[in-house]
Amino acid sequence: MPRTADGGTIGAMSETARPDFHRTVPPGDTETRAVCRKCGYVHYDNPKIVVGSVVRAEGGILLCRRAIAPRRGYWTIPAGYLELNETPQDGARREALEEACAAVEVRDLLAVYSVARLSQVQLIWRATLKGPIAAGDESLEVHLFDWETIPWDELAFPSVHWALRHDREAASGAPVPFTNPPGETGDTLPDGTRMQG
Amino acid sequence: MPRTADGGTIGAMSETARPDFHRTVPPGDTETRAVCRKCGYVHYDNPKIVVGSVVRAEGGILLCRRAIAPRRGYWTIPAGYLELNETPQDGARREALEEACAAVEVRDLLAVYSVARLSQVQLIWRATLKGPIAAGDESLEVHLFDWETIPWDELAFPSVHWALRHDREAASGAPVPFTNPPGETGDTLPDGTRMQG
Repeated sequence: MPRTADGGTIGAMSETARPDFHRTVPPGDTETRAVCRKCGYVHYDNPKIVVGSVVRAEGGILLCRRAIAPRRGYWTIPAGYLELNETPQDGARREALEEACAAVEVRDLLAVYSVARLSQVQLIWRATLKGPIAAGDESLEVHLFDWETIPWDELAFPSVHWALRHDREAASGAPVPFTNPPGETGDTLPDGTRMQG
Repeated sequence: MPRTADGGTIGAMSETARPDFHRTVPPGDTETRAVCRKCGYVHYDNPKIVVGSVVRAEGGILLCRRAIAPRRGYWTIPAGYLELNETPQDGARREALEEACAAVEVRDLLAVYSVARLSQVQLIWRATLKGPIAAGDESLEVHLFDWETIPWDELAFPSVHWALRHDREAASGAPVPFTNPPGETGDTLPDGTRMQG
């Protein structure tokens, strides 16, 4: 999908009928916005809320190998965008169900992470697995990992690293919720890889 | 501004050039969305993030009397929509500055509230006042209230009630963050008044 200059997603029905956006300050506004030359639509972009959970089971921690961009083939915790009229806890439950066919009990809030570059706030919950798992449409495979077998070099996002480590600290009695680790903005992986987009 | 059927805000440059939205399922999508007949724009609406703080000072708790809709004339804590590329803590600081000209130190997270009806997630922080206060553009007046003088019958939103009570509990040592009080959805005030919009 085409994107506005400020990173917002702009959808279009087809290549033949699509908006023609330019940047201008709408009447009564103080900021430049993406405005469609065809219909006058003003695109107001907003930060996005990601909800997810670190799901624990007897057999380990649930991770999903992504079947979709970005970071296809890399491992993540079940997480995604909060939907309209949904509570964050319901959203975290839905994401576990969609990505890992996993019924989970959502417990307390593990972390509030912020990735300002993406205008993203992440609400990550502690959760307990209540049944079997299987790859959902957005996952190539799902697996329960022992701490020692977590594929650290193949984790999808910086915040997956943070969440796994914070969940381990929480299990040892550290107070929750965590926020970004000191100095971390979510722009780079621990090995120095710069995130795209 | 016109609104989509799902409650999203849709802007328009003028009455003569404006989008012509209808509800349909875009190709490759599974949900009905607002789509413009003129340009094919697909409006993807997302939940909104509200950031704010309960600001404590020697003289009491900071409240602002709203100069704008909704709930003009009623009292609220400094809070508003998170902006693009902003961390929630920075957003809470900005709102205190805008609404009460107040420099504040943002401390720990007091609460994560959800108002599913409005597709709203609220991140409310504990904060300490660091200087003088004065009414900003969106406030009729600002004031530091002792607990006993808080105008409970003139608070703007259910979550202002929650935040003030939770902040008091936190000051007494209760663990944070709080979530919605049990059974509360943010749809009614304590006196039974149904919230509009």
